[in-house]
Amino acid sequence: MDIIVLQPDTPEENIRHILKKLESKGLKGTISQGTERTIIGVIGDTSRVTEEEEDAIRVMTGVENVVRILKPYKLASREFKKVNTEINVRGSIIGGKKIQVMAGPCAVENKTILMNIAERVKNSGATFLRGGAYKPRTSPYSFQGLGEEGLRYLAEAREKTGLPIVTEIMDPRDMDVIVKYADIIQIGTRNMQNFRLLLEVGSIDKPILLKRGLSATIKEWLMSAEYIMSRGNQNVMLCERGIRTFETATRNTLDLSAVPLLKQLTHLPVVVDPSHGVGKWDLVAPMAKAAVAAGADALMIEVHTNPEEALSDGEQSLRPDLFAKLMRELKPIAEAVGREI
Amino acid sequence: MDIIVLQPDTPEENIRHILKKLESKGLKGTISQGTERTIIGVIGDTSRVTEEEEDAIRVMTGVENVVRILKPYKLASREFKKVNTEINVRGSIIGGKKIQVMAGPCAVENKTILMNIAERVKNSGATFLRGGAYKPRTSPYSFQGLGEEGLRYLAEAREKTGLPIVTEIMDPRDMDVIVKYADIIQIGTRNMQNFRLLLEVGSIDKPILLKRGLSATIKEWLMSAEYIMSRGNQNVMLCERGIRTFETATRNTLDLSAVPLLKQLTHLPVVVDPSHGVGKWDLVAPMAKAAVAAGADALMIEVHTNPEEALSDGEQSLRPDLFAKLMRELKPIAEAVGREI
Amino acid sequence: MDIIVLQPDTPEENIRHILKKLESKGLKGTISQGTERTIIGVIGDTSRVTEEEEDAIRVMTGVENVVRILKPYKLASREFKKVNTEINVRGSIIGGKKIQVMAGPCAVENKTILMNIAERVKNSGATFLRGGAYKPRTSPYSFQGLGEEGLRYLAEAREKTGLPIVTEIMDPRDMDVIVKYADIIQIGTRNMQNFRLLLEVGSIDKPILLKRGLSATIKEWLMSAEYIMSRGNQNVMLCERGIRTFETATRNTLDLSAVPLLKQLTHLPVVVDPSHGVGKWDLVAPMAKAAVAAGADALMIEVHTNPEEALSDGEQSLRPDLFAKLMRELKPIAEAVGREI
Amino acid sequence: MDIIVLQPDTPEENIRHILKKLESKGLKGTISQGTERTIIGVIGDTSRVTEEEEDAIRVMTGVENVVRILKPYKLASREFKKVNTEINVRGSIIGGKKIQVMAGPCAVENKTILMNIAERVKNSGATFLRGGAYKPRTSPYSFQGLGEEGLRYLAEAREKTGLPIVTEIMDPRDMDVIVKYADIIQIGTRNMQNFRLLLEVGSIDKPILLKRGLSATIKEWLMSAEYIMSRGNQNVMLCERGIRTFETATRNTLDLSAVPLLKQLTHLPVVVDPSHGVGKWDLVAPMAKAAVAAGADALMIEVHTNPEEALSDGEQSLRPDLFAKLMRELKPIAEAVGREI
Repeated sequence: MDIIVLQPDTPEENIRHILKKLESKGLKGTISQGTERTIIGVIGDTSRVTEEEEDAIRVMTGVENVVRILKPYKLASREFKKVNTEINVRGSIIGGKKIQVMAGPCAVENKTILMNIAERVKNSGATFLRGGAYKPRTSPYSFQGLGEEGLRYLAEAREKTGLPIVTEIMDPRDMDVIVKYADIIQIGTRNMQNFRLLLEVGSIDKPILLKRGLSATIKEWLMSAEYIMSRGNQNVMLCERGIRTFETATRNTLDLSAVPLLKQLTHLPVVVDPSHGVGKWDLVAPMAKAAVAAGADALMIEVHTNPEEALSDGEQSLRPDLFAKLMRELKPIAEAVGREI
Repeated sequence: MDIIVLQPDTPEENIRHILKKLESKGLKGTISQGTERTIIGVIGDTSRVTEEEEDAIRVMTGVENVVRILKPYKLASREFKKVNTEINVRGSIIGGKKIQVMAGPCAVENKTILMNIAERVKNSGATFLRGGAYKPRTSPYSFQGLGEEGLRYLAEAREKTGLPIVTEIMDPRDMDVIVKYADIIQIGTRNMQNFRLLLEVGSIDKPILLKRGLSATIKEWLMSAEYIMSRGNQNVMLCERGIRTFETATRNTLDLSAVPLLKQLTHLPVVVDPSHGVGKWDLVAPMAKAAVAAGADALMIEVHTNPEEALSDGEQSLRPDLFAKLMRELKPIAEAVGREI
Repeated sequence: MDIIVLQPDTPEENIRHILKKLESKGLKGTISQGTERTIIGVIGDTSRVTEEEEDAIRVMTGVENVVRILKPYKLASREFKKVNTEINVRGSIIGGKKIQVMAGPCAVENKTILMNIAERVKNSGATFLRGGAYKPRTSPYSFQGLGEEGLRYLAEAREKTGLPIVTEIMDPRDMDVIVKYADIIQIGTRNMQNFRLLLEVGSIDKPILLKRGLSATIKEWLMSAEYIMSRGNQNVMLCERGIRTFETATRNTLDLSAVPLLKQLTHLPVVVDPSHGVGKWDLVAPMAKAAVAAGADALMIEVHTNPEEALSDGEQSLRPDLFAKLMRELKPIAEAVGREI
Repeated sequence: MDIIVLQPDTPEENIRHILKKLESKGLKGTISQGTERTIIGVIGDTSRVTEEEEDAIRVMTGVENVVRILKPYKLASREFKKVNTEINVRGSIIGGKKIQVMAGPCAVENKTILMNIAERVKNSGATFLRGGAYKPRTSPYSFQGLGEEGLRYLAEAREKTGLPIVTEIMDPRDMDVIVKYADIIQIGTRNMQNFRLLLEVGSIDKPILLKRGLSATIKEWLMSAEYIMSRGNQNVMLCERGIRTFETATRNTLDLSAVPLLKQLTHLPVVVDPSHGVGKWDLVAPMAKAAVAAGADALMIEVHTNPEEALSDGEQSLRPDLFAKLMRELKPIAEAVGREI
């Protein structure tokens, strides 16, 4: 049900015009006269009213405001599906009791380093391997990733460690090659509203990790999940990774309150990436702990054996020994909130 | 020249390690001892130092901070090219004395409406026709554009009115068809950091209108222009269209100070889109005037003959009569700042 | 009229409880059953319902949301007073056809400099002299202003030039001394929600210039004006001076769309301060022009004869010759929008 | 040590002028010639260089930029004082191993409710009682607090429960009466840069709880602490309570990464207020847990026996039973990070 607030002293004629418009959309309006404002309650299946139809009403003569009551997403909403979505990736469940940990380098740089990191994080308890073969970089002069070569290394690392792999897609034209290797396909921050890419990953049967856009509201984020789900792919997980605010002391501001809020609004699993969230390796551990305490279903953490030589995001990568320490420290916190890790 | 600030009491050994690292990149470090901090000035062609190399130094033992002195973009900078870039589109110059006005509907909806709008804006003095055939929409259930059919209508409207057309690309796979019709190709707000798309439009020889991302800094915006230019296409214009802030009374916050600032930083033409910037038709006219007063090279304005029936962004569209009035009112302001319209 | 949206399947009993609560406040609820939601329209004088009463309803069992229809400010609203407020200060009208220009140094530093600046700006056409005797500084180690000595210099400058003076109050305990000298009392950005100070200036009969808080919404800003007006002082002018956003290339982001928006929402005059808005002297002139084009009633501009030696905000001050040039250039723009300067 | 970056091709004469200026401040400049830029390193006690002196250099001919290397705060910095500040309030230590919990209503409403809440939170393990007698409200028509009557009730509650009390000051003129009752004096969000109030509380010998401003950077926040400390009062604790961002789904965005970051930058204790941070009672518990996991020294939580009837912020208050449950759940998390509660 939507509500149309009328300007004071709107003539009868304009009101009739608005009611007719509603009827033309298969809806019905009921008028309530208040002391200072008259409002029209809209009855019917308003969930099918698109934003542009709403805007069209907003500009009609006599309309002061249109208030949307229902959420604009459906498949992603907790209301539509009450029970938590659990995503099974090669036997590891994301969204269940166990908190999954996706660790690895920002970018795949070469085979030796990747293998080394993969084994180290596996030994410390990581359950997924992360690594980018196609890298979105703000500068055209930066390392852009190894492409399929990087994917092959990831697959080899999976073979050796058993860790399923998470890797990013940037371009619909890379879909075939990425699908061949990846276990979870990541939509990066800068592509959260790359709608054509969303539709594309909505048509495949791999789980999608959808990172929050730098300045995306929770609503817009869920709408992007809805894009994917509307095409059939229901296995979407949401990854909080920091939003852009006025604060420059950290790379981004990790919005941990999004975790419990999402748990109310949606049935989809929630992942937290503290590495990008803060951008400084020495803040990663406390924020990873905070994420678990706040209710995250999984963590995504950058680990590098030699941050000094990393070709991407060295500043926010943990060394393997610090990652191992973190994994030990997370255990009692996970237990304290009724989870395991 | 970059500057490396050392932590207090950094041992000699660590300093030597840093200097060696610089040498391995073909750079040289000179040490200056201050009262409270020691710094290393980096000499050599630091413009080739990538962000990841900078990060790698940032995590070295003993380093407190790395300060970048040079701008990370080059081709787009005023320093690299002192004279203004003028982009000639079918005889109309963007970036010259005359302020160009790109007007039309948000989305191409059908041929009749488009033709009607095109003729009306042409008669009022618009010099380009804008209209989307592929529309980025936050909801998968919203109208997504007519695709090639829309492009054909735009071409017909161009034929009839003589107005060159500006239209958006969302997906590299649409490049061939869009290139066939468009005079200026627009990269939308949500794709400002769709780097693969940027590289793609960098390889063609059509002018690009690059909209600012919702939360993009001016630096990031210029880096995205650099992406395009690094591939060869030097005809890029920057379009300010509002940024996301805490204020919700307007759809976005139009950052007009970006206009004179860009004029200092870059030689590229600057376009302002007040329609998206404020999101309310009755604020469009004053902000269009302000944009001209601030020094914009072109305006992009949504016009619709029947905003109530628009399939997209009706709320922010001007009716043709108001657009005509605005065009008349802009004239003396353009003259006051030494331009014409 | 407020609207209460109920959660799906709210039991009768809870609804009755909510209706009773409304009755206890002298209000009446009317129920409208929609397909997916039931809503309660609240009838009666809801303008007297405070935010906390609204919150109290929001937490009641069964309530999903409370939507406020009416604006929370009254005296400041255009609805309450249709005609523009014109504030007469020693014969100069703020809010009338003539655009007033308040110019001067950020802080009063000494008598010679102030006199010099005052005469220069007067000769260029400024109509008010601005200058701070009490300065809010982020650092306790910065120059904090001359206090009453500075006010005396301002008064002397007024005597010599005839320019009425605008100066800031930071502390209710300074009221008596400031009232003795000032023609317009400024509430600075950092004190926009210093509610006790607002009440204080609401009880005097000097006009108040209320600067927008760094992260204040337009609604909060008008609520602060309402604070002052609720005590009796109706002579409030609103000064846009830039808001805090993620962008760091300018000191703040000057929100010029606030100007036409305020003109719709309120009858109070709107002033723009481009100096603080951008924080760089070479962006001040284009933004001052844009402010006039957008409909500002007055400008506030920092001018200093020797920015290199200024004790405050030298970076954003215009030299007198550039100010004179700006004043000349503003004339045709003011005329273009039907004003004079 | 500060760094002055020169514009390319700055004439010798301008450089000499800059060096002379530095000498006049008792500083020395050393020139380093890079390939693309020349920089001047400033040697001497630059910590005494005020912002305005820095600005003054920034506007000199030939200067492209001034980079500040040293932090602008000193007393508040970890560098100045390596060991954690522990604040002893009637025997409870803030900043030690034990995490303190400050609980109570937003505003003191009447004696019965306050007594009831105080006893309930005491029984659940709270160690301080919070409650406002002077309330900053965005609307002049809202409940503004009971004033001294409220303080008396707080004192009675302290007598009965033994809980020290935390209460807010809004106006320097209330200092005497508040000092008489309060154990910790709170500076609220909207007064973080009410510099006169900061100086005032810097001169008393009660501990100060300094809330972060809505859009205050960490640096500005520490500068406000510096204001207080510069007057002699070293017992300052910093309270993160959410910052303003574009996200409207929560009241504010709780910036938990500020906690570990502050632990690096300052020796002062860090408090987290999840109630204001999120503004919704059902998100308070997970965020309180996250705050403890992130390393907070204390929590500040709103509790009300009857949120429906609260005169302020009912929406974000926990009922006493939920608060009791939270206290039990916090224990194992505190232990997991080596603390107790």
